[in-house]
Amino acid sequence: MPNFLAVDAGGTSTRTVLVDPHGRCLGYAKHGGGNPISSGREGAAAQIVTGTREVLAAANAEAGDVAGVLLAMAGASTVMGADWIADPLRGIGVDAPVAFESDLLATFFSGTYRPDGYALVAGTGAAAIRVEDGLVAATVDGLGWLLGDVGSGFWIGHRVARTALASLDGRAPQTALAPLLLRELGIDDDASVNAFGRSVALGRAIDALYELRPVQLARFAPLAFEAAGDEAADRIVAEAGSALLSTLDAVAVPHLAGPVILGGGTLSRHASLPELIASARSTDGSRPEIRRVDDGTVGAVVLALRTAGVPVDADVFETVTSSLAALR
Amino acid sequence: MPNFLAVDAGGTSTRTVLVDPHGRCLGYAKHGGGNPISSGREGAAAQIVTGTREVLAAANAEAGDVAGVLLAMAGASTVMGADWIADPLRGIGVDAPVAFESDLLATFFSGTYRPDGYALVAGTGAAAIRVEDGLVAATVDGLGWLLGDVGSGFWIGHRVARTALASLDGRAPQTALAPLLLRELGIDDDASVNAFGRSVALGRAIDALYELRPVQLARFAPLAFEAAGDEAADRIVAEAGSALLSTLDAVAVPHLAGPVILGGGTLSRHASLPELIASARSTDGSRPEIRRVDDGTVGAVVLALRTAGVPVDADVFETVTSSLAALR
Repeated sequence: MPNFLAVDAGGTSTRTVLVDPHGRCLGYAKHGGGNPISSGREGAAAQIVTGTREVLAAANAEAGDVAGVLLAMAGASTVMGADWIADPLRGIGVDAPVAFESDLLATFFSGTYRPDGYALVAGTGAAAIRVEDGLVAATVDGLGWLLGDVGSGFWIGHRVARTALASLDGRAPQTALAPLLLRELGIDDDASVNAFGRSVALGRAIDALYELRPVQLARFAPLAFEAAGDEAADRIVAEAGSALLSTLDAVAVPHLAGPVILGGGTLSRHASLPELIASARSTDGSRPEIRRVDDGTVGAVVLALRTAGVPVDADVFETVTSSLAALR
Repeated sequence: MPNFLAVDAGGTSTRTVLVDPHGRCLGYAKHGGGNPISSGREGAAAQIVTGTREVLAAANAEAGDVAGVLLAMAGASTVMGADWIADPLRGIGVDAPVAFESDLLATFFSGTYRPDGYALVAGTGAAAIRVEDGLVAATVDGLGWLLGDVGSGFWIGHRVARTALASLDGRAPQTALAPLLLRELGIDDDASVNAFGRSVALGRAIDALYELRPVQLARFAPLAFEAAGDEAADRIVAEAGSALLSTLDAVAVPHLAGPVILGGGTLSRHASLPELIASARSTDGSRPEIRRVDDGTVGAVVLALRTAGVPVDADVFETVTSSLAALR
């Protein structure tokens, strides 16, 4: 019987699943970053090959029985082609067509088998898609840390850092974010003044922050939630929530209420956002289904089945989710 | 008679002046970027050496008569030491002590001979200093494009780009900034949709903008002023002005009203800011002196004289400014 390989390849971790044509997940593995843009072609391929070997062994399956490979990842296929992963997989005996799908679509299908609706994702970045007939009909945001990604982990973390420094610089009121940022950077709160007429702590924080790649400022996003009750922190979180609602609004059309699938580690910290979205998208008293998902693994499996021509209905979706849950 | 060399070394241009002990400017030259952080040690030194040869020739002066060298530049001396410029100058016969001063202090002394007051500068970056007894007593902002520089050219240009893209992305109202940004990037306003469910023009703008170094977004700051009357553009300009006022407020102390010296190409575009600053800093009906300067050249000369022990009073300052104006 043919099997299918589904890979949810993210920047920091990659989940690999072997699934049969009935939607039964036979093996599951989790490894490091599998996106060739962030991890390099060889690094990404190595993670995916390792995961593939592992799920084949776990399922006691032959590499030659894999009839199709589906990789869900951000933007990679258009820039990189398929050889970087097709060749290494062939090297271990997996000689099957390799298809790519959007990581946002995998998030969507991790929450529903229905072919129409929305996904809103906020991790380090942020974006929303509208799905029609199982395809991405429109994308809003996802413009990256410098130009967009409003409400994302970077967006929040960047504001946390700027707001904390503005406070230390005397340009903004005191905020709990300042000591939290210094703690996170391992810097003592030394208010004595350096040669530039600045506090020593501020000077050290600037130096430490410019040593990071800008996108790494996402690491400070949790401080905004940790400082709940602080005026500046609460404002950042509220503005992030509004920004994410605007992103979803911009991708939405009136005749399609939902489902709305929510993904990403930053979005998961917004306790009240699902309720806000449900109210905003209610029509005639009917509220759309809102569902959080942990990652895109279920969706990658759904997309692998769909790509292979296997219709995914409520029953198959239930088989996928329950058999995968048993493996994780 | 000994002469002094004053160098206002910026990231994009460097102005070199030879001055005598009475404040008479004898030679003036303008060349490319002379800051070793942005132009590299050799590149920066080459510009300054060329300028030095030129002003010596113009004044018919001997290199051996130069009794002191003063370089006004951002942050360079603490990071780079002095050898990168002292050695090449010695190579052309200028064997004199080399001193460094802050570019912000040179801006201050370009507008006044008084030893106390403020400078507020907004070019690509933005910062304010309080000057006491001729020295920098406090600095606010100047934290760089990623962490601060509120109200700067980068700050405005970054918002112009983000606001224009948000509009093209359907997340924000239409704005005149969108067609201006596309024009500036040489991109046709093609609203047809690409494979990611985005407009072709938006996709091309994203690609073009990520090819720039982030700080180069400062290039779009003039669009905010060009689009005056557009709601989004006017908001960006107004917020930049408020941010610069906050920066000045944060460095100010009650007993010192001014003078306030304004510098930098971005600040020069804010027509109403000097008046706002004058009102904000007025006390008991007396308004501080507010003065715009074009660059830090006069101040570099003043600092060269002060470093050499020449007191700069109103008469010497007048000699410096008028003799320099005659050369430029």
